Amino acid sequence: MNLFDEAVPRSPTENEDMGQELQIDRRTWLTGAASLVGATAAGLLTPALLPAEEGESARPTHVPGRSPSPYGVRAPGETIQRLPTATHSLTPHQALHGIITPSALHFERHHNGVPSINSDRHRLLIHGLVDRLLTFSMSDLVRFPSVTRTLFIECSGNSGKEWKGPTGKTVQETHGLMSTSEWTGVPLSTVLAEAGIKPDAAWMLAEGSDAAAMTRSLQLTEVVNDALLCYAQNGEALRPEQGYPLRLVIPGWEGNTCIKWIRRLKLGTAPFMTREETSRYTDLMPDGTSKQFSFVMETKSVITSPSGGQRIEPGFVEIRGLAWSGRGKIVAAEVSTDGGRTWQAAQLQHPILSHCHTRFRFGWRWNGDETIIQSRCTDETGSVQPTRAALIATRGVHSFYHYHAIHSWKIHRQGNVTNVQV
Amino acid sequence: MNLFDEAVPRSPTENEDMGQELQIDRRTWLTGAASLVGATAAGLLTPALLPAEEGESARPTHVPGRSPSPYGVRAPGETIQRLPTATHSLTPHQALHGIITPSALHFERHHNGVPSINSDRHRLLIHGLVDRLLTFSMSDLVRFPSVTRTLFIECSGNSGKEWKGPTGKTVQETHGLMSTSEWTGVPLSTVLAEAGIKPDAAWMLAEGSDAAAMTRSLQLTEVVNDALLCYAQNGEALRPEQGYPLRLVIPGWEGNTCIKWIRRLKLGTAPFMTREETSRYTDLMPDGTSKQFSFVMETKSVITSPSGGQRIEPGFVEIRGLAWSGRGKIVAAEVSTDGGRTWQAAQLQHPILSHCHTRFRFGWRWNGDETIIQSRCTDETGSVQPTRAALIATRGVHSFYHYHAIHSWKIHRQGNVTNVQV
Repeated sequence: MNLFDEAVPRSPTENEDMGQELQIDRRTWLTGAASLVGATAAGLLTPALLPAEEGESARPTHVPGRSPSPYGVRAPGETIQRLPTATHSLTPHQALHGIITPSALHFERHHNGVPSINSDRHRLLIHGLVDRLLTFSMSDLVRFPSVTRTLFIECSGNSGKEWKGPTGKTVQETHGLMSTSEWTGVPLSTVLAEAGIKPDAAWMLAEGSDAAAMTRSLQLTEVVNDALLCYAQNGEALRPEQGYPLRLVIPGWEGNTCIKWIRRLKLGTAPFMTREETSRYTDLMPDGTSKQFSFVMETKSVITSPSGGQRIEPGFVEIRGLAWSGRGKIVAAEVSTDGGRTWQAAQLQHPILSHCHTRFRFGWRWNGDETIIQSRCTDETGSVQPTRAALIATRGVHSFYHYHAIHSWKIHRQGNVTNVQV
Repeated sequence: MNLFDEAVPRSPTENEDMGQELQIDRRTWLTGAASLVGATAAGLLTPALLPAEEGESARPTHVPGRSPSPYGVRAPGETIQRLPTATHSLTPHQALHGIITPSALHFERHHNGVPSINSDRHRLLIHGLVDRLLTFSMSDLVRFPSVTRTLFIECSGNSGKEWKGPTGKTVQETHGLMSTSEWTGVPLSTVLAEAGIKPDAAWMLAEGSDAAAMTRSLQLTEVVNDALLCYAQNGEALRPEQGYPLRLVIPGWEGNTCIKWIRRLKLGTAPFMTREETSRYTDLMPDGTSKQFSFVMETKSVITSPSGGQRIEPGFVEIRGLAWSGRGKIVAAEVSTDGGRTWQAAQLQHPILSHCHTRFRFGWRWNGDETIIQSRCTDETGSVQPTRAALIATRGVHSFYHYHAIHSWKIHRQGNVTNVQV
């Protein structure tokens, strides 16, 4: 079990005072400490004491701490962020743990900014091929039977720039357009049943109340089964940039179908051919045709640590990553530490949930040689994440959406990690 | 499926402009709307338009929204908070959904405030009956194999004031000293194995680096199996008030054993008899003796909605609550809507996790009569949450900690809900 005997320097305790405070016999302290790997007697007697930064105590046990607070904020030293641009922001997966993305770090992709909506004023209209035109206030919707599910949302453009070459420097840049939250809301099927769906209805238009009036046409059958009209994310009300006060969340479907700030559902017989689905969210195939309504996100995984921009040291390294599929549960994640020649099973974090990020972990000893690390995954339908070559053989190189090839990180002799493609 | 036919007023759309924007034929709109329950023609033509509050758009589709942001914040209208006092703050369960407590709303209980600690300076010392005295920096700990678990933490004083009578007005006041997070860290057993536990070690002292130097003695066997030294909560670094940068989390044990800002573990043969365990965290029994080291939290549940301070209307009401046990998984939650005379099974939200809050839901039609609603639960060991009378028969009335009786909310004719005891 002594994983780090060679690798991890044991840090000497930072000041002598700690020994006194702890009422450890001083001889015992020094004798014990002398046996620490990497600790010197000089280091123990005059340890490097980092200066306290603003708002931090050099001796936290000597100063009463601050009082409880109404709504907590991060520690001053924790500053990881979403790196916003004009149209989107990216989740910093290199710095996150587990599967829940903090709501404050959930990725964003907006078509005309984040509207400021008063929940009391918001209405959802249901019309078209229904028995009864209905509108619902938020307080109406909260009264319905509720469902909670932990689900990923991935933008179809996630990793899209990787079609052209190894573009992103970090996993935030290559895979930051996806996040996982615990979503709570009303089943769409419940609300549609209230309105009464006419027999010839086959498609549904969903419209947001942002300044793009973002609209998508959704095939009705699958949507009805699983979609939720969500008002809560990770326990509390949706964040404004995630669709406050109401968002349609469709398990496993591309993020742009999960209409934010949703205000209207119109039932019809055919797709409505909106702006975003006739040009933007289509996939150009090698034969020159374009694939439309490619809703389901593919089987995909990525190593989040070590990843681009990070640095490792020889010895034990836990390789950590995420695997997911729009078709259901992940059943296996594998890791290669030799550029894809051999693969070994990674450990999957339980519970494994359908249409949800699954955290995988793989214990590795890095010998200091240059190498390439990769992950691939398999979902419960048997779908296996393809190599980049296999993906290009099928899809060509003129697409932008739904890139889901095996991702490669190169470990250099110095321990730094960069994005490469093999 | 038309759950609300009698009960829920359908709200008219808030302005005519929406009808025009949506390109709905105006006659269809009015004809359709006229069939809405509760909507009048006058209401549709001159709907009550709430004034836009500061920072909110009256017409969000007409104004480009704000840009993406580095780290998100709540909507301006969402102001639910922890209600801090000098020593603690309470999770507002009446306003939360699912099982994850947002980190910003996780309850707090401090013995001398929240220290401000620089993660780079923090060290964990392991000494006493070990083969090697060791100290670890945070970067040492993050390199170990990691584990993520979603776990509740409950203060042993949660609901403690209810021993004396129906004291708390809301579920936040009666049950706010508990929260659930996705915790990530190093198994304690891994770190202890690095130090080497001597055969005669049976207890472990855990010490925080707050100004109380909060200490508890923990029985080694159980702790080693399940405890985590956590550095992450709900994906990101621990919040300062949850022990940043390192907290011991022991699944199912009372919150005060989950030492925050942990800096020291000392192995020994017997309990260390610290201040907090010789007086405060003991349970006075009916025979005058005091129970010490009552670590495990009991089988317990509470209805979070409708709950004290809320108001309901006749018709369909989804009763929502939380059930949990320090001994493992919840296998059943039941609801009574007649003051405990009859009980019906509630639906449990999946996945059901060990030592974790389990959300339960129960669909009910309130007929408008005065009544009392209650919940009770059973865990996988067969332990059933007791009535208040049964708890008092065993424990007397002189205890403060580990109150876990069935909780009662009275529904008054006016629909308001208050805390009562039966």
